[in-house]
Amino acid sequence: MIFEQVESYGLAHYSYIVGDGGEAVIIDPRRDVGVYVERARQNDMQIVSVLETHRNEDVLVGSVELQRLTGAEIWRAESQLDYGYGEPVEEGDTWQVGQLKIEAISTPGHTPGAFSYLLFDAEGQPWIIFTGDALFAGDVGRVDFLGESKIPEMAGQLYDSVFDKILPLGDGVMVCPAHGSGSACGADIAERRITTVGLEKKVNPRLQHSDRASFVRDVGQVLKKPPYFTRMEEYNKEGAPPLSEIPPPRACSVAEFARELARDDTIVVDVRSELEFASSHVPGSLFLFKGGLEDFGGLFIPLDRKVLLVDSGGYPGDPVTRLYRMGFDDITGYLRGGTFEWQNAGQPVQSTDSVSVQDLCRRLDGAEPSHLLDIREEEELAEQGAIEGAHHIPIAEIRDRMNEIPTDDPLYIFCGSGRRSMVAASLLQKASFDNAAVVLGGIQGWSSAACPIVDAG
Amino acid sequence: MIFEQVESYGLAHYSYIVGDGGEAVIIDPRRDVGVYVERARQNDMQIVSVLETHRNEDVLVGSVELQRLTGAEIWRAESQLDYGYGEPVEEGDTWQVGQLKIEAISTPGHTPGAFSYLLFDAEGQPWIIFTGDALFAGDVGRVDFLGESKIPEMAGQLYDSVFDKILPLGDGVMVCPAHGSGSACGADIAERRITTVGLEKKVNPRLQHSDRASFVRDVGQVLKKPPYFTRMEEYNKEGAPPLSEIPPPRACSVAEFARELARDDTIVVDVRSELEFASSHVPGSLFLFKGGLEDFGGLFIPLDRKVLLVDSGGYPGDPVTRLYRMGFDDITGYLRGGTFEWQNAGQPVQSTDSVSVQDLCRRLDGAEPSHLLDIREEEELAEQGAIEGAHHIPIAEIRDRMNEIPTDDPLYIFCGSGRRSMVAASLLQKASFDNAAVVLGGIQGWSSAACPIVDAG
Amino acid sequence: MIFEQVESYGLAHYSYIVGDGGEAVIIDPRRDVGVYVERARQNDMQIVSVLETHRNEDVLVGSVELQRLTGAEIWRAESQLDYGYGEPVEEGDTWQVGQLKIEAISTPGHTPGAFSYLLFDAEGQPWIIFTGDALFAGDVGRVDFLGESKIPEMAGQLYDSVFDKILPLGDGVMVCPAHGSGSACGADIAERRITTVGLEKKVNPRLQHSDRASFVRDVGQVLKKPPYFTRMEEYNKEGAPPLSEIPPPRACSVAEFARELARDDTIVVDVRSELEFASSHVPGSLFLFKGGLEDFGGLFIPLDRKVLLVDSGGYPGDPVTRLYRMGFDDITGYLRGGTFEWQNAGQPVQSTDSVSVQDLCRRLDGAEPSHLLDIREEEELAEQGAIEGAHHIPIAEIRDRMNEIPTDDPLYIFCGSGRRSMVAASLLQKASFDNAAVVLGGIQGWSSAACPIVDAG
Amino acid sequence: MIFEQVESYGLAHYSYIVGDGGEAVIIDPRRDVGVYVERARQNDMQIVSVLETHRNEDVLVGSVELQRLTGAEIWRAESQLDYGYGEPVEEGDTWQVGQLKIEAISTPGHTPGAFSYLLFDAEGQPWIIFTGDALFAGDVGRVDFLGESKIPEMAGQLYDSVFDKILPLGDGVMVCPAHGSGSACGADIAERRITTVGLEKKVNPRLQHSDRASFVRDVGQVLKKPPYFTRMEEYNKEGAPPLSEIPPPRACSVAEFARELARDDTIVVDVRSELEFASSHVPGSLFLFKGGLEDFGGLFIPLDRKVLLVDSGGYPGDPVTRLYRMGFDDITGYLRGGTFEWQNAGQPVQSTDSVSVQDLCRRLDGAEPSHLLDIREEEELAEQGAIEGAHHIPIAEIRDRMNEIPTDDPLYIFCGSGRRSMVAASLLQKASFDNAAVVLGGIQGWSSAACPIVDAG
Repeated sequence: MIFEQVESYGLAHYSYIVGDGGEAVIIDPRRDVGVYVERARQNDMQIVSVLETHRNEDVLVGSVELQRLTGAEIWRAESQLDYGYGEPVEEGDTWQVGQLKIEAISTPGHTPGAFSYLLFDAEGQPWIIFTGDALFAGDVGRVDFLGESKIPEMAGQLYDSVFDKILPLGDGVMVCPAHGSGSACGADIAERRITTVGLEKKVNPRLQHSDRASFVRDVGQVLKKPPYFTRMEEYNKEGAPPLSEIPPPRACSVAEFARELARDDTIVVDVRSELEFASSHVPGSLFLFKGGLEDFGGLFIPLDRKVLLVDSGGYPGDPVTRLYRMGFDDITGYLRGGTFEWQNAGQPVQSTDSVSVQDLCRRLDGAEPSHLLDIREEEELAEQGAIEGAHHIPIAEIRDRMNEIPTDDPLYIFCGSGRRSMVAASLLQKASFDNAAVVLGGIQGWSSAACPIVDAG
Repeated sequence: MIFEQVESYGLAHYSYIVGDGGEAVIIDPRRDVGVYVERARQNDMQIVSVLETHRNEDVLVGSVELQRLTGAEIWRAESQLDYGYGEPVEEGDTWQVGQLKIEAISTPGHTPGAFSYLLFDAEGQPWIIFTGDALFAGDVGRVDFLGESKIPEMAGQLYDSVFDKILPLGDGVMVCPAHGSGSACGADIAERRITTVGLEKKVNPRLQHSDRASFVRDVGQVLKKPPYFTRMEEYNKEGAPPLSEIPPPRACSVAEFARELARDDTIVVDVRSELEFASSHVPGSLFLFKGGLEDFGGLFIPLDRKVLLVDSGGYPGDPVTRLYRMGFDDITGYLRGGTFEWQNAGQPVQSTDSVSVQDLCRRLDGAEPSHLLDIREEEELAEQGAIEGAHHIPIAEIRDRMNEIPTDDPLYIFCGSGRRSMVAASLLQKASFDNAAVVLGGIQGWSSAACPIVDAG
Repeated sequence: MIFEQVESYGLAHYSYIVGDGGEAVIIDPRRDVGVYVERARQNDMQIVSVLETHRNEDVLVGSVELQRLTGAEIWRAESQLDYGYGEPVEEGDTWQVGQLKIEAISTPGHTPGAFSYLLFDAEGQPWIIFTGDALFAGDVGRVDFLGESKIPEMAGQLYDSVFDKILPLGDGVMVCPAHGSGSACGADIAERRITTVGLEKKVNPRLQHSDRASFVRDVGQVLKKPPYFTRMEEYNKEGAPPLSEIPPPRACSVAEFARELARDDTIVVDVRSELEFASSHVPGSLFLFKGGLEDFGGLFIPLDRKVLLVDSGGYPGDPVTRLYRMGFDDITGYLRGGTFEWQNAGQPVQSTDSVSVQDLCRRLDGAEPSHLLDIREEEELAEQGAIEGAHHIPIAEIRDRMNEIPTDDPLYIFCGSGRRSMVAASLLQKASFDNAAVVLGGIQGWSSAACPIVDAG
Repeated sequence: MIFEQVESYGLAHYSYIVGDGGEAVIIDPRRDVGVYVERARQNDMQIVSVLETHRNEDVLVGSVELQRLTGAEIWRAESQLDYGYGEPVEEGDTWQVGQLKIEAISTPGHTPGAFSYLLFDAEGQPWIIFTGDALFAGDVGRVDFLGESKIPEMAGQLYDSVFDKILPLGDGVMVCPAHGSGSACGADIAERRITTVGLEKKVNPRLQHSDRASFVRDVGQVLKKPPYFTRMEEYNKEGAPPLSEIPPPRACSVAEFARELARDDTIVVDVRSELEFASSHVPGSLFLFKGGLEDFGGLFIPLDRKVLLVDSGGYPGDPVTRLYRMGFDDITGYLRGGTFEWQNAGQPVQSTDSVSVQDLCRRLDGAEPSHLLDIREEEELAEQGAIEGAHHIPIAEIRDRMNEIPTDDPLYIFCGSGRRSMVAASLLQKASFDNAAVVLGGIQGWSSAACPIVDAG
C-alpha cells in the first residue's frame, strides 16, 4: 500500500498517488507525469485511474499524457464543461484500489462542479479526503473565478460543501488539499502539508463562522489573477500538448543567442541568482529568481513571446520544467556557457546597482531618503511595518504605475530580502530607468542592522 | 518545512524527519543513517537533534552514528537505563525547529520509560504526535518485554499513557507510530501508515475498552520474541558499531565460498527466489525469501554464525543492509556469480521438490493425504480455514517439533503461497529430511484451483 | 572535451559521443537515445550532428528521434539507398566539433556505401577512427548481406577499405568499432573494446593476408542471419517509430494475462533465471535468459506475435528496452507479480526437469547415455571437446530438426552451462516433448566434476 | 571485461579500473574511493589489487581505504621509501585478472622508483600501458621533485624509461597516463585523454629528441610546486585518514558562521560564481571559482587554517570532496543559506567592482591606462599578446609582489576571462586594497569587442 504527496515546488501544488494490490490512482497529476509512472513501477503497480478534483487554472494537468503512457481511465469533475477528454464523475461514484476504496463527493464552490475524493482504508473506514481547492490547511479555495457577480453564489456553494459534506466526516479524517502555503489559489494557506478535519475545525479562520452569511462575506474577496490563468483554462479543457512532443530548448551559442535576442517576439529571462544578475546580465533581461519563477513569471512573461533563458550555462532543466507546468511551451533555448561566454565574446552587458544596508546607511547619512521604493504587499507592510518616507507600489502593479517613479536621483528599492527588488529593478531597466538600486537584505537586513534613519515599523 | 516518514521495509519500522528553518530533527533513526543525512542536505538543513521514543528491541538505532556525522544532540527516553550515550528526556522538554516546536510527553507501558513527541505547527497548534510503540494504527504496543509477571503493571501504564495523555490531545491530531503493519512489536497493526487520534478512537479495537481493567486483560498477552531481540537490547544500550567500521562482505569465488562453507562457524543463507532455491542450491543452505528476511532470519540465523550469502550473483546490497539493521554484522561474503558459477565449477547442489496444486491434485488422486504439513499461524487457520487431514506445526516451532514429522512418504508442505514452506523445507533438508515437497501457490492456489480432495475451510 | 563509448549490452553494439567546445557529435546512436541527450546536457553540450557509419541490420538506429529532440543534422552513409531521412555523406566531408575535426572516409565492403569517420585531435593529428562494421578488434565485418553471389565483390571492397584506407593511417591511431565481442556482425570479434591500427595489424587474423585474394577467400563465409534482420533493414531505412509514441507494456493482472495468453497472436516470453523457469512457468512459454535475449529472442520470437513478458513481477524495464532496440515493439504487457501471483491464483504451471552433473552421473550409473542432446556450436565442440554418444544439434537449428529427437526416455540437454539448454528445453516443451531435462552446469560442470561416464574431449 | 578511466576534475587526475572474470584492479585510486567500489559492484566484481605507479605529490591516494573496504592487496612503487602500508612492486611482477594479465615495468624519472603497468589482453597481446607520470599525452612527467641538483639524473632516468621501456612496446599499444591536460605534474599536457605509443612518438614534442642529452636539457625545468604538495607527500607515505573518520562540515547558521569567522585560525573560502562574489561577499573572503579550486586553493589556502565555505547555501558536496582530495581536511562548515541569509541578518558585506569591456573602454576614453594589472601567465602573454601599458604579475606571485601595485586610482585587473582576476581581487581586498576592479570577459572580451585603446597583441 502506498500513499504519497507529490509537491510541485513554486506552484505549491500537491498531487497524490494512492496504490494497493498492484493498482494505483493518481489525483490531480501535474503535466510532467514521469514521477507517477516511476513511482508506480517502483512499487510494481499499474496506474488504472486518474481523478481530477476540478479544472485547474494555475497548473497544467497531465491526465491525457498519463493515459497515453499507462492506459489509465480519466475521471473528471466539472461535468458541465465541454471537455476534450475523460469521463464525467458523479456523486457517489466509487473506485476500488486493491483493498482500498475511493468515493466521489460533490464539493462545488471554488469551481462549479468540483469534487472531493474520500479514501477508505482496508478496513472500510473513512481515512483521507482529497479536497482539491475546496478546503486547504488554514483556508478555503477562492470563489472569484467566475467573476465578481458570482461570488456570493459560489461562496454559498463552498459553505455547503465544506460544512455539510467535509466537516461531518469526523475530526479524525485526514485532509489532503491540492495546494499548500504560497499558492495563488488561496489567500492565506497554512504550512501544514497534510491536515485533519478536526484541526481545521479548530484553527482554520474560515471555519470559525457560525452561519453561512458571515462565511460568504469573509471569503468573498477578489484575488489577483495572473494573465497565464486564462490560457491554462483552455489547455486544461482540451488536454495540454504532451511534453514529449515539444521541441526541447536548444543550447544556443553566443552568436545564436544574440541572433534570437534581436527578434521582436523573444524575451530574455534570467533565472540566475540576484547577485549574478546585478553584476552582469544581457541588456533587457527580465530577472526571475528561482523561488519566484511561477509567481513573477506568471505576471511578467508575455504570453506571446518566445523565451530565451539565461542560467548558469548548462541545461536549465528545472526552470524549463516549471515553465512547462504553467504552459510556457515556447522556449527557444538557453545561453550555453551563460554570461561568462557572453562576456568573453565581447557582447555588451548591463549591471544593476546593489547596495548593502550598511552602505545605504552610510550613503544616506542622515539625509532624507526621498527616493525609497517599497514593493512589498500591503499585508507585509501591515505585519512588518512600513518604511518612513518610502513610496509604496506593490510589485504586481509596478508596470502600470511607472509614471509615479522618479528618474533623477538614485532609487533604492526595498522588498523583504532583495530578490523581488531585483525583479522590479529589471522591469525598470527594461523601461529605461537607469537609477534603480536594489537594497540587499531588504527590510530584514535593514531591521537587523538597526540603521537609524528609517523607522521600519 | 519538511515532514517525512522513512520506512524500513521488512521490519515495518518508521522513522521520521521533521525540519524547518534550516534545522532538522530525526525521530527513532535506523542504523543506516545515510537517508537522513541525504534528505537533510537536499533540503539545506542541519540535523540538530535525534529523539528516541524508547529503547528498541527489534531494530538497531543509528543515533550515535548520526551524531558522529552531524554533531546532533541525542535525546533518549528510558532515562533509568544505564545508557552509553545521549541526554535523558524529561516530561515537558521542548525543542524548537525553525517555527515548529516539539514537546516530550511521557508515555510508558511498552517500555518503562518511553516518551512520545508532540509536534506543534508554525501557528502553535498540536499537529502530529510521534507515539513510538505506545499507540499504533489499530493496535497498541506489546507489554510483555519485562516478563509475564510485569504484564499487568505495564499494561496499566500503557492504558494511562494512551487514554490520559494521547487521546485527550484531540481527534484532529495526527498519529505517527514507530511501526506499521507486519511488525513484531504489535500483535495486529493496521495498514494505515499515518493515522489520527479520532480515527483510532473510532476503530482501534484496543481503544474500545471503557475501563482500565478490561484494557489490561485485552493487551496482556505474551508474544513471540525472536532470539536476536536480546542482542539488540544490548546494542541499543551502548550504541551499535558504526556501519563504516564493519568490513563489507567479500565477493567470494567458488573456491573461497567452498572453503568458508566448510568451517563450523558459518551458515549459508540463500535469499534468491523460492523457485531458484527449489531447482538448485548449495547443500545445507537456509532459505529466506526477501520479504521474510527479518521475520525468519531473526528466528533461524544462529547469533554466533558468520553468514555466507547466496543471491543472484552480484553484490546483495539490500539483504546485507537489512541484516545489519538487525545486528547480523558478521557477514563473511557472498557467492560471486551465484549458483550459476557454483554449478559450472562442478560443485554439488541440492534441489527441493516443488509441486503445483494441480499436480498435487493429480498425485493424490482421491487418496488420503496422510502427509500434509501445514505451517501457517493459528490465526491464518482460523481465518482461511484449516486443511482436512493436515498436520499443523506453525513455522516458528518447526525446529522444536521435528520429531512429529514423518520421514517416509512425500511430505507436502502448505503455507499461504509456498514461500514460508520453502523456508521450512530448507530447515528440514538441513536436518536430513529428504521427503519435503513445497506446494507452490499454497492454500491460496489450492483454494483457487478448487481441488476436491481437501476441504480448505 | 569528452569521448565516450556507449555499449548496448546483448547486441555488443558500441556507439560514441564526441564533444568539445559546447558541441557534440553522436556516431551510430542506438534507438533509446536518452543516454546521449543526458550526457550532452551533463557536459553543457548541444548535439549538433549524428553520423551513421552504415545502415545497420542488427540494431535500430535512433538518429531521427535524436534529431527531433535536439535539432541535430543527420549524416548518413549508404547514399545510394532511398532513405527517408538525413543528408548523404561524401568522401572527405568534414565536421568541426570545437577544436576537434572529423573527416569521412569511404570504407565499403560490409555494406556497399559504408563510411568510417576519422577524428583529429585539437592539434590536428589523426587520433581515433570510428570504423563501424568495417574493422573490428580481431575481425572484420561480414560481407554476406547482399547474398552469396556478391560475397567476392564485397570482400574485395572491404580489403581495399581496410588495407588502403584504414591501415595506412598509422599504427598509433586508435580504432573504435561499432561492435564488440559477441555481435552477430562479425564472426569472431576479440574482447578489446577499443583497439589500435598497430595492434590489429599485428594480431587480427584477417589482416595477416599478404594479398587481396587470400583475404577474400578467408572472409567470404555466409553467417547466420536472424529473421529480425530483415525488418530492421526496413526500419532503419525510414527511421524507426519514436519510442515515446509506443504504448508502454501494461502491468497485467493474472486475469488479464490469462486472457491475452489465450489469443492466437501472442507469445509468452519468460526472462527470469533458468532455475526459476525450471521450477514453474506459464505453460507454453519461450524461455530467454537475460544474457541471451538478443541472440535467442532474435531467432525464436516470431515477428508477428505480440509479446507477453514474465519476469520477477515488477516492471521489466531492461528487457523491454532491449527488445525495442531490436524492433520488437509490440509488447502487450507483463505478468504483474510474476509466477508467484499466477500460482496463488491457482493457474496451471509447468516445470522443466533439471539435473545436476552429480545426479546425472548417479542416474546413468555406467549405463550407455543414449539420450544426450548437445546443442552447442560446432566451434565449441572443436574447442571444448565433444561428448561421446551425444546427439548434436546446434540450438539455432533445433526447431527444424525436431524429428531427430527421441521422445521416449529422458533426454539430457547439454550446453556450456545450462542456460541455452533451458531455451532449447522450452522450445521442446512448446512442441509437446515432455522428456527434456537440462543438465545444470553443462559441459563446464561436467568436466569439473570429472564424471567418468562421458568423455568430454 | 571492464576498462574505465575515472577522472578527478580539477586535478586532471586519471585513475583506472580494469576487471575481468569477477575480479578488478584499481590503478592509482583517488582518496574518495566510493566510485571504484560502486563500479566493481555493478559489474559483480571484487577489487583484489590496488596498483600505485608512484607516490603522488598532488593528489591523495585512497589505497588504504580501498583495502579496508574490500580487502584488496596494495602494491606500491617507490620501494625504497619507508611506507606505512602495502607490498613493494618489483620489475616483472605480474597480476592475473580473469583472462587478462598485468606486468610491472620499472619506469623511474618522475620519481625515483616509479613503475608503469602493462595490460595484456585476453589473447596475451600487450594492449594498454598505464604510465603514471612517466609519459603523458604530449608531454612527460616533471623531474624536479628531488630538487634542482637532481634534475639531470632524474631526466636521464626518465629518458631511459620512456625510450627504452615504453616506446619499444610498439606503436599500437595504448597509453593511459595518470594526468590529463591542466595537471601541475606536467608542463604542457595535451587534450587526448587516452593516447598511443605511435601517436606520442609522432607528435609528443618531448619525444622528438634524437639523443638523451637534448631530452635532458628539454625537460629539465623547475616548475611551480604549490605548498600543499609537501603535506601530500607525507599523507601518501602513511596513508591519509579515511574519509569516513573526518567529521563532515557543519551547516552553520549566520550566528555560528560569524562566530567561527572571528577566530584567528579560520579562513572564509567563497566558491560561488565570480559575479555573485562581486556583488556581495563576507568581508575578507578568499574567492575561488569552481574550475580553479585546486590550482588556486592549493596556492592560497594556508595549510594551518580551518576552512569556512560560502557556496549557494546548500551542502557544498563537490567543493568539499575536492578539498579532501588535496588534504584540506579541516573544513569547519559552510554558511547555511549563503550570503542571502547573511544579508538578511544584517551582517556586513563587501562588494568588488567589476566592469565590462565596453564600460572600461568608455571610462578610459582615450586616456592612458596607467593602472592595468595583467595577471596571466608568461605563456599566455606570448600566445595571446600582451596589453600595452599593463603591469604584469602572474597570479601565483601576486602575494609576494603587492608592493608593486598602486593604491590610488582604480586598478583594472585582466586575465583571460575575469575569473582569475576575481581571485586576485579577493587577495588584494584581503590585503586592504580598495581600488581593484575586475574586467569581465578579460582579454577575450577585450579582443572580441575590439576596443581601440589597448593593443592586445
